[in-house]
Amino acid sequence: MASVNRHFLELQRTYLFTEIARKVKAYQKANPGRRVISLGIGDVTRPLVPAVIAALHKAVEEMGHAATFHGYGPEQGYPFLREAIAAYDYTAHGLDVSSDEIFISDGAKSDLGNFQELFSQDSVVAVMDPVYPVYVDSNVMAGRAGEYQNARWQRLVYLPCTRENAFVPDFPETRPDIIYICSPNNPTGMALSRHALQEWVDYARHHGCVILYDSAYEAFITDQGIPHSIYEIEGAREVAVEFRSFSKTAGFTGLRCAYTVVPRDVTAVDGKGGRVPLRELWNRRQTTKYNGCPYIVQRAAESVYTPEGRVQVMADVEACHENARRIVDALQQMGLTVFGGVNAPYLWVATPHGMTSWEFFDLLLARAALVCTPGAGFGVAGEGFVRLTAFGTPDDTEEALQRLATVTL
Amino acid sequence: MASVNRHFLELQRTYLFTEIARKVKAYQKANPGRRVISLGIGDVTRPLVPAVIAALHKAVEEMGHAATFHGYGPEQGYPFLREAIAAYDYTAHGLDVSSDEIFISDGAKSDLGNFQELFSQDSVVAVMDPVYPVYVDSNVMAGRAGEYQNARWQRLVYLPCTRENAFVPDFPETRPDIIYICSPNNPTGMALSRHALQEWVDYARHHGCVILYDSAYEAFITDQGIPHSIYEIEGAREVAVEFRSFSKTAGFTGLRCAYTVVPRDVTAVDGKGGRVPLRELWNRRQTTKYNGCPYIVQRAAESVYTPEGRVQVMADVEACHENARRIVDALQQMGLTVFGGVNAPYLWVATPHGMTSWEFFDLLLARAALVCTPGAGFGVAGEGFVRLTAFGTPDDTEEALQRLATVTL
Repeated sequence: MASVNRHFLELQRTYLFTEIARKVKAYQKANPGRRVISLGIGDVTRPLVPAVIAALHKAVEEMGHAATFHGYGPEQGYPFLREAIAAYDYTAHGLDVSSDEIFISDGAKSDLGNFQELFSQDSVVAVMDPVYPVYVDSNVMAGRAGEYQNARWQRLVYLPCTRENAFVPDFPETRPDIIYICSPNNPTGMALSRHALQEWVDYARHHGCVILYDSAYEAFITDQGIPHSIYEIEGAREVAVEFRSFSKTAGFTGLRCAYTVVPRDVTAVDGKGGRVPLRELWNRRQTTKYNGCPYIVQRAAESVYTPEGRVQVMADVEACHENARRIVDALQQMGLTVFGGVNAPYLWVATPHGMTSWEFFDLLLARAALVCTPGAGFGVAGEGFVRLTAFGTPDDTEEALQRLATVTL
Repeated sequence: MASVNRHFLELQRTYLFTEIARKVKAYQKANPGRRVISLGIGDVTRPLVPAVIAALHKAVEEMGHAATFHGYGPEQGYPFLREAIAAYDYTAHGLDVSSDEIFISDGAKSDLGNFQELFSQDSVVAVMDPVYPVYVDSNVMAGRAGEYQNARWQRLVYLPCTRENAFVPDFPETRPDIIYICSPNNPTGMALSRHALQEWVDYARHHGCVILYDSAYEAFITDQGIPHSIYEIEGAREVAVEFRSFSKTAGFTGLRCAYTVVPRDVTAVDGKGGRVPLRELWNRRQTTKYNGCPYIVQRAAESVYTPEGRVQVMADVEACHENARRIVDALQQMGLTVFGGVNAPYLWVATPHGMTSWEFFDLLLARAALVCTPGAGFGVAGEGFVRLTAFGTPDDTEEALQRLATVTL
């Protein structure tokens, strides 16, 4: 009798976005003349830049002729893209990452969801709180999370990121085997300093942990001192896997391309006294269960590294920063305390007067027809905050700012 | 201390394609003037058809303008494609499959590799022998295969498909929980009849098994009596999940699009006396660990269902059949016994004079500079056969046939 993976049944339903949609719908029914603007949108709104569009058309044309047609590609990605990434994202910054340590995929969500397969089922997993839900749910499905009690998985180690610790997590009491770190962080918008990251790398080296480093938002870093890659940190090649994406950097959320760096030096124990390079295991995972990112999409990603591609893409990132700065100003005018927005497209806004995140959500919707994302949806430590994003169009952002100016708290 | 998933270490290295490459290289070194032609190629060689190219250009253009840009899409696929598939591949044939039972993905390999996650780790898995390695390896990695002894995994149930049973597997002595069936089959090129498939569906219903039905090659079926979909079989909606792909049908091996049908009625037990619909679990798996197939690729897949798209794509399939017929004729002229090639792009050729599959491989390479795929590489029951494919270009096929005519056995 076929029976299901019981860990799938343990997954908690997240009602965050369903509940937001329900409240927005109710508001719109009661206020039919009022347009709701979302400041919580997690998707890009700008079209793909001209360099990417041109590269796509060219690659599509190649696919229409036998001489230039591309069938199955390497599961790890085409050398032209792996080499462009190695050159521009690593070698150019003096970092030691070679193209065969870079694996192209259809998205950081896929890679972050799948990477846990490489580890033993009894591994102890640490996540920051608040947290991007994929880290948690993929480990729940694999049976690593234990019981769910009081909004916490009993076998997961939580690393609270709070106003008190300036969103830099302290080392946990229980030593984890695997540590997910997201910096610049979704949802807090805060980035770890070089010093903080060095401490985590040292911790991982000392305790034999592997760090799964999600740097999907590195393109948004503006502060000089913030590392763009974990490989800027001494010793990171021994303990850290880095996940990056073209989604937010180059507007690829609908085109799907990302990459994961697995240095040769990152190993884990095999239970028989030996150590196994994770690069080999990830290669085996990808060659067995994945068939590569589309050729035309990889050509599109390659074009992001051309001189015109880089200029065009950075202009979009800068437009996002401009949005963020204006929103931060408006919120501070209201007397609110705002974190993030400088090195990330996310703003983490402390709710006023001890309101819960849902109460503040309700207030912004009722008074200004604005939608944000309640922090409680990202974990226990997210309570007392709401997440805003800077992905909106300039027009929507402008109107949202005018509405915010009318709200008194 | 981070430790690896020990089941990854149990995976057997397959030396099949490495060994073929080594032998071809040695031959070419010894015979520098002789061009080697592969009759074992597993990839399409024809370019994408004009309807698909036009759809891609149009969708790319949309991505370049804010008003028509598409960011994150539904993880399950866009309704336009799910509805086209439901209408043309199912409803038009009188089959009861609705669009929300269809999940779009980047490939059948991904879906076939990932689907096993939905089942308990102690599930007993049956596979046909010879077999497409992804079914086996993905279950080895999940810890379901047991020890590897004498070229067999001890916890897997093998269903030999041999000349003696006309490549229709008998029911096994051990009752499995999950049964992988590939029809039309890779590598044998043989397709299950309606009667045989009904018996397997009845068996699954009686014993509470789930059938994972890989019909990636259904477009190549020419015999009237052979089912194109398992849902043509009574009761299949209760026990069968169907995997299909645009890879071989429409030349999408480099574009990456496939779909999986999970009917609402397919359930498995939850260990607490209840039953869980697999559709819900697959939806949860995909929404957690996958972010959808690119918009432009889904528009390309949609174009395959337009009148011109269908005509163009079927012309390519017919060209493949024409290749197959000519190769079968040539092999039969040599006195060889050939299976498949009628309802599949694969030919399964019995080796002459009791030769092993590698011996026959060596003979074809030495005497005609032709490459095939030794059947032993697909499993114990593949010994005594080689696999040929009909994906080659017309010119290569023509030259291969001329060479075959010079070989006496």
